[in-house]
Amino acid sequence: MFHRPQLCHPQWLPPHFLVVFTRFSCYQFHSIIRPRKASSDRQAKHSHGLWNTTQKLFPVSFADTQDRAFMQQALAEAEAAARLGEVPIGAVLVHQGAVVGRGYNLRETSNDPTTHAEMVAIRQAAAALGSWRLNDCTLYVTLEPCVMCMGAIILARVPRLVYGCRDPRVGAVGSIYDFSRDDRFNHRVEVTEGVLASECSELLSGFFRLLRARKKEERKPLSGEGDQ
Amino acid sequence: MFHRPQLCHPQWLPPHFLVVFTRFSCYQFHSIIRPRKASSDRQAKHSHGLWNTTQKLFPVSFADTQDRAFMQQALAEAEAAARLGEVPIGAVLVHQGAVVGRGYNLRETSNDPTTHAEMVAIRQAAAALGSWRLNDCTLYVTLEPCVMCMGAIILARVPRLVYGCRDPRVGAVGSIYDFSRDDRFNHRVEVTEGVLASECSELLSGFFRLLRARKKEERKPLSGEGDQ
Repeated sequence: MFHRPQLCHPQWLPPHFLVVFTRFSCYQFHSIIRPRKASSDRQAKHSHGLWNTTQKLFPVSFADTQDRAFMQQALAEAEAAARLGEVPIGAVLVHQGAVVGRGYNLRETSNDPTTHAEMVAIRQAAAALGSWRLNDCTLYVTLEPCVMCMGAIILARVPRLVYGCRDPRVGAVGSIYDFSRDDRFNHRVEVTEGVLASECSELLSGFFRLLRARKKEERKPLSGEGDQ
Repeated sequence: MFHRPQLCHPQWLPPHFLVVFTRFSCYQFHSIIRPRKASSDRQAKHSHGLWNTTQKLFPVSFADTQDRAFMQQALAEAEAAARLGEVPIGAVLVHQGAVVGRGYNLRETSNDPTTHAEMVAIRQAAAALGSWRLNDCTLYVTLEPCVMCMGAIILARVPRLVYGCRDPRVGAVGSIYDFSRDDRFNHRVEVTEGVLASECSELLSGFFRLLRARKKEERKPLSGEGDQ
């Protein structure tokens, strides 16, 4: 699959084809000659792996819109987690354009350390598709996956991962490790980062800001009681 | 907790104490002055983290017997997996001397990529204890955990991990990664490897030998039919 973009590279094409091609599908041509970029307000720090098939079939703007639309759904999942008092992280798993798995962080509610958003979405998708191999799927998650979740993504053979903001503390797709670039695994995951990054990041910051304010508020009456 | 063994080090004790101590509890003293060793027929390649509390309370041989006994239970779980045609890997999770979670590899049967033996045992133990924090627990597993399982072990705050044989292909406790020695995680796992290693390894080799023989057997009649 790697040789395809090379065949379409300008040096393989006659000059007149270049003109016609640029005229009729400048967006698509743009996607061939330039390295893949993140589709969000924040520039991707890295983008690698196999070329996105959607991007080859449609103009860049369409693929970007699609990524943003599914990330919006992941954000809605994250908001559902926040309403339960969980750290707001959400994920959706898309198979051939349809959502087959969705989930949000449920660690405190379920008392299960493995119920991260990605894990819930992967399990749901595997049950829906009747297979542990999640081929032709894209996982959208608001935060960079941890080692457990990235391990599960590789084990489930998810071909593509799109995430919002980085997790510099425990992220395993560029922060403390990068499993997507490790050839020792028998599966490579194509990664796009930074889709709706500021929204994803703001949701998390807002949650922790509120949490700190609540804790401060809880401490206040206690100190007042002590004064009496 | 790290300073405890140092307080018991011979240089902190007067000579007469050394004699009395050696006389009445030579096994225990042996466990203090010498670095921790694996309890199996195969020597541990590494053993680190916090000191084993069981080993401080009982003679080394008792701790070893206990580890071997629980690993036998993990092996029984692995055999149950083999009977279902799954790769034979088993795990038990022990809390204060009692098994609170057990599991075996169920990937093909459940069609869930996350149902590794360790994950099943962790989920069961968390449900049994009513908490995602698996404090005072030891996880016994027949094969070195992968990145997903080792990630879950760290997330669940499991303090001690005992495993049978190494997985040089995807093991994350010394083979391709060693998360137990990574200070960037907010939890350290004490690791003992090599407990009943030959039994664990033989179970896996035997399973794959049988699988290859079956596949060969399946191909035979087909080639015979072709000749007719």
